[in-house]
Amino acid sequence: MVDILHRVGMKDATAERVYDAIATIDGLSGWWAERTSGDPSIGGVIEFRFGPGGIDMEVVELEPGRRVVWKVSDGPQEWIGTTVEWDIRTEGDFVIVLFRHVGWREPVEFMHHCSTKWAIYLLSLKELVENGAGRPDPVDIWISDWH
Amino acid sequence: MVDILHRVGMKDATAERVYDAIATIDGLSGWWAERTSGDPSIGGVIEFRFGPGGIDMEVVELEPGRRVVWKVSDGPQEWIGTTVEWDIRTEGDFVIVLFRHVGWREPVEFMHHCSTKWAIYLLSLKELVENGAGRPDPVDIWISDWH
Repeated sequence: MVDILHRVGMKDATAERVYDAIATIDGLSGWWAERTSGDPSIGGVIEFRFGPGGIDMEVVELEPGRRVVWKVSDGPQEWIGTTVEWDIRTEGDFVIVLFRHVGWREPVEFMHHCSTKWAIYLLSLKELVENGAGRPDPVDIWISDWH
Repeated sequence: MVDILHRVGMKDATAERVYDAIATIDGLSGWWAERTSGDPSIGGVIEFRFGPGGIDMEVVELEPGRRVVWKVSDGPQEWIGTTVEWDIRTEGDFVIVLFRHVGWREPVEFMHHCSTKWAIYLLSLKELVENGAGRPDPVDIWISDWH
């Protein structure tokens, strides 16, 4: 089992603001995929639609201001059954987000790509929270032939 | 053991140009740390100096146009003994770089930070190769209280 791990900090933010950006359809469509819809409550499924395809996430944990966990119910076959975890806390002048995409079966080349792409989207989340505008798909930064 | 994995592609590039950006002092100082010095030949040590501290890498493999491997000989204690691997290949219109920082003993919070920061520096490498100017430390993108 291999994991994708990231950490970003947001300045002049609150944990509630960051949580809302991760736990609501409006927030998610502002930094990850403009075409986001579905039910963001526990047991609900959020549908993310990108240029190259779609990902469906079942919401499995919600702790307001602190933690969000999704399970991938549909999407690229390497993603199905994997888990995405978000932990949020305040530290000094920053709200820190620890991100983990865990449960990958093999460290395939696509996983390398997704790791870099997650970093790009986390920067987009940071821009949304700090400046009011992120860069969700389809206005995200392309990093290669794979998107 | 847990690894940091990334993948970026560079357009209008050659494998030789990308290799030079990773295997020479001049190249490395253009995207990772402006203050880079040392001996980039096999068995040599390259010294990278950043705002928050320094990293020394021993060069253990060099395959021109294809592969570079470093072993961390000094730096943050979590880094010492870990290995950084670069694989370069051409695919259609892109030169693809597969990056791996392997041998971490524990998925500590600092590893999450380094994973995101590597993505930032890989984008800087991409900018250097594609546009002639990267964003090495100290003009790199800061992502949190940790740099």
